[in-house]
Amino acid sequence: MIAMLHDLSPVAIARTPFPEKFGIPRQPNIASAATASIELLPPFNQPQALLGLEQYTHIWLLFIFNGAPATPQTHKTPKLTVRPPRLGGNERIGVFATRSTHRPNGIGQSVVALQKVEDTRLIVSGVDLLDNTPIIDIKPYLPYADAVPDARSLVAQEAPPVLDVTWEPSAQRWANDYENRLQRPLYELVNQCLRQDPKPAYQHAHNRTYGMRLWDVNVQFTYRNKDGILVTAITHIADNR
Amino acid sequence: MIAMLHDLSPVAIARTPFPEKFGIPRQPNIASAATASIELLPPFNQPQALLGLEQYTHIWLLFIFNGAPATPQTHKTPKLTVRPPRLGGNERIGVFATRSTHRPNGIGQSVVALQKVEDTRLIVSGVDLLDNTPIIDIKPYLPYADAVPDARSLVAQEAPPVLDVTWEPSAQRWANDYENRLQRPLYELVNQCLRQDPKPAYQHAHNRTYGMRLWDVNVQFTYRNKDGILVTAITHIADNR
Repeated sequence: MIAMLHDLSPVAIARTPFPEKFGIPRQPNIASAATASIELLPPFNQPQALLGLEQYTHIWLLFIFNGAPATPQTHKTPKLTVRPPRLGGNERIGVFATRSTHRPNGIGQSVVALQKVEDTRLIVSGVDLLDNTPIIDIKPYLPYADAVPDARSLVAQEAPPVLDVTWEPSAQRWANDYENRLQRPLYELVNQCLRQDPKPAYQHAHNRTYGMRLWDVNVQFTYRNKDGILVTAITHIADNR
Repeated sequence: MIAMLHDLSPVAIARTPFPEKFGIPRQPNIASAATASIELLPPFNQPQALLGLEQYTHIWLLFIFNGAPATPQTHKTPKLTVRPPRLGGNERIGVFATRSTHRPNGIGQSVVALQKVEDTRLIVSGVDLLDNTPIIDIKPYLPYADAVPDARSLVAQEAPPVLDVTWEPSAQRWANDYENRLQRPLYELVNQCLRQDPKPAYQHAHNRTYGMRLWDVNVQFTYRNKDGILVTAITHIADNR
């Protein structure tokens, strides 16, 4: 029993606006403009595998953290504690007391809003997944079982504080053009990703320009002060993946 | 990417009151008297792996469905649809539209109430897991991310209807004695497991005696009518596992 190993195979792949970790929502449902397509992989890419799922407003995605170790940590010295960025990067807490991406077996779980079932793919919103994340299971979110009204956390882990996001007019025009051309809600997505303060809690680099990649664009921004961000420019990424 | 396989190892094992599937709560949190011990396995059996978890009232358990296929169904012909017992066992729906135990990769997720952190084990309540279920991850339940207030299901999948449970006085005395001796809430556990109607929705066998195993006892009961159950006797299971 203890030595049991179990093979995992992806059942789907997530196509998301997030080619890299920086700026990615720290939890699902922070960014409703973060839409994604969940595409079933063979041999599960048959419409009947999703039959009935359209009756739910939200679904669970179980996934493998991209960039997490591919082999379970039981094979090496396991990491028993982590230092969450939100705690300033100094305090250590148990790996099972966090939602850290670096965890035994490397499995994440996110609830996302189901917008549409299209043949063998799902259009969802509120994702916090890297592009190309392997999905290992899809399940309906059952409010009566999954939404626990009396659940509490004694640590200060309620929704993170929210920054004020303003735009240079030229950057905003660029975003509007992009949206109209590709039907992707870029303006709102940028606002939602920046509002949560993408930089680690222990960084204080107010005078530099940051870059965050979304879809095929690079969003440049600076910190006006500790409560506000200014979007300065958006450019296409030359080597479009 | 598509062919990626990923090894899984259990990080803990669940010791629960449920040696078999019959009578087991259909979802977590139905039976608050269903307490269990989640025991960390090497190399994770160090108190620091749980450091900080005591600050949460609820936790997620990711687990392997005991009795589910040990190899993912991608190795054989996958089962794309299932027939949920709640729908009478006739209607087929997609495997990704259910919480069925027979699913690709065989991974389940349950939220349970955390009662106590004791060295390298957790005392939890509200479990719906078979005894000896391998746990592959433990994570805090984050109300702001996991409890979705506006999630809905259009199918009639709210909390199942509740039966009325009554006891033969001799059976109730037996349960009280057992509780006092072992400090296990047997009486309430029986009530909670039977209240949800353990038999499949398509069965109508009102004149037979059923047996349900909990811990090391066998609970016998009959259906008085379609809305009520009578607990007739409780006995020790001779070959105590």
